[in-house]
Amino acid sequence: MFLTPLIPHPLSFLPPVSFLATAEAENAPIVLTGVLLSLVVIYLASKVGGEISKHLDFPPVLGELVAGVVVGVSALHLVVFPESGMQATDSVIMTVLQWINGLTPEAVSSIFQSQSEVISVLAELGVIILLFEIGLESDLRQLKEVGYQATIVACVGVAVPFAAGTAGLMMLFHVPAIPAIFAGAALTATSIGITSKVLSELGRLKSKEGQIIVGAAVIDDVLGIIVLAVIASLAKTGEIDVANVIYLIVSATAFLMGSILLGGIFNKTFVAIVEKLKTRGNIVIPAFIFAFFMAFLGNAIHLEAILGAFAAGLVLDETDARNELDELIKPIADLLVPIFFVTVGARADLGVLNPAIPENRAGLVIAVFLIAIAIAGKVVTGWAVVGQPGINRLAIGVGMVPRGEVGLVFAGIGSASGVLSKPLEAAIIIMVILTTFLAPPFLRIAFGKSPEPPAGESAPEPVAVAGEG
Amino acid sequence: MFLTPLIPHPLSFLPPVSFLATAEAENAPIVLTGVLLSLVVIYLASKVGGEISKHLDFPPVLGELVAGVVVGVSALHLVVFPESGMQATDSVIMTVLQWINGLTPEAVSSIFQSQSEVISVLAELGVIILLFEIGLESDLRQLKEVGYQATIVACVGVAVPFAAGTAGLMMLFHVPAIPAIFAGAALTATSIGITSKVLSELGRLKSKEGQIIVGAAVIDDVLGIIVLAVIASLAKTGEIDVANVIYLIVSATAFLMGSILLGGIFNKTFVAIVEKLKTRGNIVIPAFIFAFFMAFLGNAIHLEAILGAFAAGLVLDETDARNELDELIKPIADLLVPIFFVTVGARADLGVLNPAIPENRAGLVIAVFLIAIAIAGKVVTGWAVVGQPGINRLAIGVGMVPRGEVGLVFAGIGSASGVLSKPLEAAIIIMVILTTFLAPPFLRIAFGKSPEPPAGESAPEPVAVAGEG
Repeated sequence: MFLTPLIPHPLSFLPPVSFLATAEAENAPIVLTGVLLSLVVIYLASKVGGEISKHLDFPPVLGELVAGVVVGVSALHLVVFPESGMQATDSVIMTVLQWINGLTPEAVSSIFQSQSEVISVLAELGVIILLFEIGLESDLRQLKEVGYQATIVACVGVAVPFAAGTAGLMMLFHVPAIPAIFAGAALTATSIGITSKVLSELGRLKSKEGQIIVGAAVIDDVLGIIVLAVIASLAKTGEIDVANVIYLIVSATAFLMGSILLGGIFNKTFVAIVEKLKTRGNIVIPAFIFAFFMAFLGNAIHLEAILGAFAAGLVLDETDARNELDELIKPIADLLVPIFFVTVGARADLGVLNPAIPENRAGLVIAVFLIAIAIAGKVVTGWAVVGQPGINRLAIGVGMVPRGEVGLVFAGIGSASGVLSKPLEAAIIIMVILTTFLAPPFLRIAFGKSPEPPAGESAPEPVAVAGEG
Repeated sequence: MFLTPLIPHPLSFLPPVSFLATAEAENAPIVLTGVLLSLVVIYLASKVGGEISKHLDFPPVLGELVAGVVVGVSALHLVVFPESGMQATDSVIMTVLQWINGLTPEAVSSIFQSQSEVISVLAELGVIILLFEIGLESDLRQLKEVGYQATIVACVGVAVPFAAGTAGLMMLFHVPAIPAIFAGAALTATSIGITSKVLSELGRLKSKEGQIIVGAAVIDDVLGIIVLAVIASLAKTGEIDVANVIYLIVSATAFLMGSILLGGIFNKTFVAIVEKLKTRGNIVIPAFIFAFFMAFLGNAIHLEAILGAFAAGLVLDETDARNELDELIKPIADLLVPIFFVTVGARADLGVLNPAIPENRAGLVIAVFLIAIAIAGKVVTGWAVVGQPGINRLAIGVGMVPRGEVGLVFAGIGSASGVLSKPLEAAIIIMVILTTFLAPPFLRIAFGKSPEPPAGESAPEPVAVAGEG
């Protein structure tokens, strides 16, 4: 990071102006080359993984995560990050760049650092856009219809796994409080995307069970994000301060509720502004100004950027521009969200769960424990439903099991904050993968369908339509 | 940039693993906050500037550029970069972050560096996507129809301003060869976007003059990118080597032609792959894998990333997925391209053209010279058309005048490479702004319409339709 005048002033007949080409400016085209190559690898991994997963009848996002593991620190070393203790020489992409450009080790190291920072921020923008999109897809009115039952299921589904997971980790495994709370919080999530997709594939989306599951998953999203904001902030300060916890719960709730209430007013302004604009991006740019500003605000009041993006999505979901915005945001999300999932997988060092190494076994035991709590803690929620005789309680409970994106958000943020040890982080990711893998076939069984082979090659599939995405 | 174990290992009962939280990881959420706030400022500037420009009947991109100047180093200091000699303390956004988070000066400086790198790469991705989109909009078949005349106009329109500009700068102003060639090259561009839009607004797109202008602008795009690749590579090595020039012209031409020829084969593969994919992003992700890989390849063979992106666009324009891809790429371009235009404006220090400071006057004289050559060198192209009696030669010449995006690409790349002195860079930007500002009203005059007031408030306007973008 030295400032060196690398290039002589070209217009030397003019009076000299302060002109310092930094090492960064000199390396800038190579940083860009590294970013482009990393993006190509990430996109290839996401598509190959996603398509294989889809072909095996699992949600595509799981395949993206597993593909990330394959290209990441656990296996191919194509997408690696300095935070996991990797050097530039460990990165295959950096080795390629060094070979192409004949770089010095110092230059490679600096480029590796810059390139990793850029990919990390792109991944963060990806998760911000994902939560913005989830907010746009969530529907406050839907909640009111399923109402009471969904709220109970969601609350039980947050409280039981969180309490059992945190207490179990602290008491059985003597994990310190903050990582135990973080892992417990990661158990609370329910993936609205995966759940509603599986229900729709089973033709049960409009059943009473289906409506309760979707409603509870929406509430769970909101609860999960509040829990995440609280937990992530605790991780930052490094201690549990009851006043701070109360401040965070109040501010997260107030932020979310306040945004939604003020959003009711802002809605009309937004639509009025959008209608006045006559240049390209007249919907996308105002929407992202709002989303990024809310994300900035979430960060600035020491909550989370994703909380702000989610609130922005909920607000804009109420506008008349909703349908158009839904369409416009899709390709943007398609481009940025996979960076998040692949890098979460790439950062996870599954080597720490290799049972052949004796010192790994503690981590494996934790993973087994987390998975058991993750399934049991959600399945019980079906029995929390009251006054609905004859309802399929097992189906509701199983429908709440998949952790999906939100669970990964916890793992990713825990990883970035440095509060999770590698074994615990890997255990959480294994838990997310397994609950998400197991839920779709189990949900079929719970709804009384004959269990289909997970490979699904024999099942009839609709004719592929180009441009489904 | 010291590696410090900032956070104690949380699972201390487990055997220690190498766990180093870097200063970057510690500052990562604040870098993200800075990026989000910068993006909010950039998007606000782009929309306000673009809309005002549109309202005044100028192309929106000009407004984005001018708004960039307003928020950048010349005025508000909201979006500034370390390469222009700015410190973190000069940045208003960094001051805000320091105030929110109570940061040390060292942390602010490191965050400023990281945040600027991220915004720079986002701007680079923006111009890559812009050229990909221009490639998608360009049509090889259209060229064949207007054929011969358009080729002559394009070649004259590249050769005359380039030769006159470079020779004039070297002989009259004693500018060294490389910056003179760079400035000359910046004079060669013609904005196909602005030109075709103005023609369409005048209802002259399908006239013989209109067809020749558009065809020539397309060829000019291709020529301009080859010239740019050659020039930018010269700027990197810092010397003019005839063998190298020949290598670059041959490799740029071979790269572009080879991509298009191979693309004819790849087209079918691409469509076949896209049709097989069943997950979200089935068109966007393969298209961007291709575009980013081509951009990487362009960089890797020491040409330019944008050349690869443009070639990728030309290739995919020939596929059946074209129309869908055109729609999908729009919101992505809307989100990333403005970052490029605003930061080009933000980096331009117009203070060096302040005539009140005596040592600036040399730069101002250069700007006046460049503008004269820029206009005269393109207007003469109309008289290069042969065998077309009664054709409106003035209209053709004036239609080639606006420099638009491609001219800015030159200025931006010249700025990033450090080869342009600040006065020369500012002179180029002034030239781009003025030619683009002047062309639309002059084109109306040339086509024999009564000149409308540039403010255009009195002109009847179509009813605003939400969702035009």
